[in-house]
Formats: sequence, C-alpha cells, structure tokens
Amino acid sequence: MVRNIKITVAYDGTSYNGWQTQTNGTGIQQVMEEAASKIMKQKVEITGSGRTDSGVHALGQVANFRADTRIPQEKIKIALNAVLPDDISVLDSEDVPLEFNSRFDAHDKTYMYQIYNSRIGDPFLRNYSCFVPSNLDTEKMERAFRLVEGEHDFYGFMAAGSQAKTTVRTVYETRFERHGNLIKLFITGNGFLYNMVRIIAGTLIDIGKGTKEVSCIEKALEERERSVLGQTAEPQGLFLVSVNYKKGLTINYK
Amino acid sequence: MVRNIKITVAYDGTSYNGWQTQTNGTGIQQVMEEAASKIMKQKVEITGSGRTDSGVHALGQVANFRADTRIPQEKIKIALNAVLPDDISVLDSEDVPLEFNSRFDAHDKTYMYQIYNSRIGDPFLRNYSCFVPSNLDTEKMERAFRLVEGEHDFYGFMAAGSQAKTTVRTVYETRFERHGNLIKLFITGNGFLYNMVRIIAGTLIDIGKGTKEVSCIEKALEERERSVLGQTAEPQGLFLVSVNYKKGLTINYK
Repeated sequence: MVRNIKITVAYDGTSYNGWQTQTNGTGIQQVMEEAASKIMKQKVEITGSGRTDSGVHALGQVANFRADTRIPQEKIKIALNAVLPDDISVLDSEDVPLEFNSRFDAHDKTYMYQIYNSRIGDPFLRNYSCFVPSNLDTEKMERAFRLVEGEHDFYGFMAAGSQAKTTVRTVYETRFERHGNLIKLFITGNGFLYNMVRIIAGTLIDIGKGTKEVSCIEKALEERERSVLGQTAEPQGLFLVSVNYKKGLTINYK
Repeated sequence: MVRNIKITVAYDGTSYNGWQTQTNGTGIQQVMEEAASKIMKQKVEITGSGRTDSGVHALGQVANFRADTRIPQEKIKIALNAVLPDDISVLDSEDVPLEFNSRFDAHDKTYMYQIYNSRIGDPFLRNYSCFVPSNLDTEKMERAFRLVEGEHDFYGFMAAGSQAKTTVRTVYETRFERHGNLIKLFITGNGFLYNMVRIIAGTLIDIGKGTKEVSCIEKALEERERSVLGQTAEPQGLFLVSVNYKKGLTINYK
C-alpha cells in the first residue's frame, strides 16, 4: 500500500551544494533520495518544503515522499539514519495523508541567521556564522529588524532572477538575540523570497556597522528597490529552523 | 632584538594531522610556523605545550617562538590571524622572558572530552564529540571519573609505544557536566600520558554502557594494566582547553 511519509531533517550544509542540486556537486535531496530508495527497495522521490542554498544548514527541514512499504513509521527514521552520512540526521518520520505536500502545505517557516561579532574569529563557528569583526550598533539592528514584520511587498528583498508569482509575504515575528559574541536573528513568516533572509541579515549587518541607515528598510519596502539595501549575507550563517503545518501559529525556536 | 613571544591558540583540528606532523598531511604547528615566518620575515620555530592528535581540537593551546621583531606584542596576534586559515585563531600574544618554554614550564593543563548521548546523531557535533546512542549510567561514569583524581601511576592509561620517563601524574580535578544530550568531561592535571584522556573517556563510556565496571579504574591504577580498561575514545571529542603556567592552581573552564 502506498503511504506518504513526512520526515524532519537536520543537516550541516557545509559539504553540500544546497538542498537541490542544479549544477555540480551533491544535493542533500539527492543523498536522501538514494538513502530512501535503498531502504524502501524502490525509486523514491522526495519533496522538500523548499530549497536551501549551498552552505545553508537546517535544524528542522521538512520533506515527504510516497512509498509502498510496511516499515512502521517510527522505524523509518532509524533505517534512514543507518545509511545516511553523519552530516544529515532524520529527526522524525511519520505517516501523513496521501495529499500532504511539504512544500505547498507549509503554513509558516522559521529561519535563524548567526553573526559572530568579535575581533578574533572563532574556528568552531566559521562554517556556522558570518564573522563580523567591526563594532555593531545592535540597538539599531534590532530596531531595523522589527520593521520587516507584517505583510509587505518584499520585491526589493529578492535576489535578481527569481521567479516568484507574488512578492507579497507576511513576516509574523522577528527576534533578536545576543549571546556573548554571537548574534542570532530569528524570523518567522508565511514564506520567504529567494535570498530574502540573507538580504535582511546583510542589511542589518551594514546598519550595525553604520554604512546603511535603519530607514533603508522602509525605503526598500516602499520603493521595491534592492539597491537601497545592504549586502547579501554569507550562506553559512543561515539555518532553516522549522517548518510549521498547523493552522494557528506555533513558533519553534531551537 | 630577539624576543620570546607566547601565543594562545584555538583550532578546529578536523582538517589537520595533529599539532605536529610526523607523517603525511598538514600539522597545525607547521601552518603556524609558516604564518609566523611570513609575518616576522625570518625563519620561526614554534614550540607547543604538547602535541594534540589528528582530529583533536584546542580552545587554548599555548606555544612560544623567538623572533627578532619590533611588532608590538598585541599586534602579533592580529598579524598572524590575517594570514592564518580560519580554522586556526590566535587569541593572545605577549612577550615573555627569553627562558620561557611553553612545554617544560607548563604547571597544569585542562582537557575536555565531549560525548553526544542521544538516539539520533547531531550533524553539527559530528566532528566535536563522540556519538553514543546507547543509554548511559551517568551516575556510575561520574563516580568512576573521580577515581582518577590524585597522584597515581597511570602506566595502564597510556597507549602502547609511548616513551614517558615517568608514568606518575597528578590529576588535580575532574568535572562531569551534563547539558541536555551533551556530556562534558573536564580533567585538569600536571601532565597527561599519550592517549590518557581518551582512554579515561572511552573507559567511562564503557562503564556508562555497562560493559566495564567502575572498579576497573582502581584495578588499572593498582595493576598498571591497560587491558582492564575500556576503549580509547575517538579523537574528535577531545579539546585542549587551557594550559596554565602560574604557580598555584587556576583552572579555566570554557
């Protein structure tokens, strides 16, 4: 009997060419499809909630696949982890209705961007944060971060060449956390345009340094203009924290 | 004028063949000597407080080198960090008396061993911990860990082929910490034999699993016998935390 299995996956994206390979290198989706096909003894195609770029990490990416199998739902994660490389872990596996689609049914997603703000880099965070040695005005960064909350046309916050049908998105919540030298930017929304979180993070870094003003966020929202914003922050600081499918908002921070 | 410079170094040992290369691959010492020679425009030889094995990390390794230079002491770390790869960071640089030797003058060292104890591996800790999916009796592990405290002949806690003049060492303090799924074993002593911390950690893991008894520690100390102890734990869980040169004990935990 064909079942639809939903899996929650954590991965260190350092060695991969993103979730979905388009050019050279190995994609996480491809590695997972090979593992699932091996376990299920059939060709398995996996749908992810969305792509992550090369070097981007996930604490709770969600994906689903259909397979004709009798393996109990909770054993599927064990079987997958036994064959997956140790930079990818399946945290959960469960049966969902056949019509469930991890991409189209997502209600909201939470991302986190990590900035390591110190005069000297931390060797252990080099693949998991953006290193900023300059002084940062975090009060301004926090204020600017709150300006992206709400329903806006984020056209100016999108990398060139994107093909989104609509550029209107709702940001439900932002959260600015500082733990010693580490700054964590959490953002939850109903969807994000291509590079949107990295453009927000990069602009906040520039605002913190003083090379951009807080008001550039409002300007970019009004004028739909990428050029008034700051840099696109490096990929290795970005983590897909969670994908939520429940109606009614539940924000999960790790 | 020739000066003696003491440096404190953090490194992610994942990509290196240990502190000092003996065979193939690149050693951290070698990379640091190349960086220092470049900055100082002379051939620089670096003495470390001790070797770390391939895959072992440091939060505060200490080394020293002599050089004829006018670079102010606090600028040396900045210059070195500018040329070093981002998995090695010089945290501090300072002038010390010409006779200071980071190896022979060390009063005590602190190591930490990390165990990730969960059914599912954490992709972000794979290079920084030993993954143990079995249940662990941490009360027994903690009790066994305390048994290594004090002055003992640790002959049984040494890898074969070591050439230590004496195998008597003093362990000043052990500390067992549990943070969620992560177990941290801290150990401070006046010196450690080759693989001693990894043999202690591996034996504690075996005691936690129930394949070794707490009493094997006492037995190995009395009988000077390696075979009564457990496995040598994997290198990637080990961190050299700090090296202390002051008389009178100061234990620095990170």
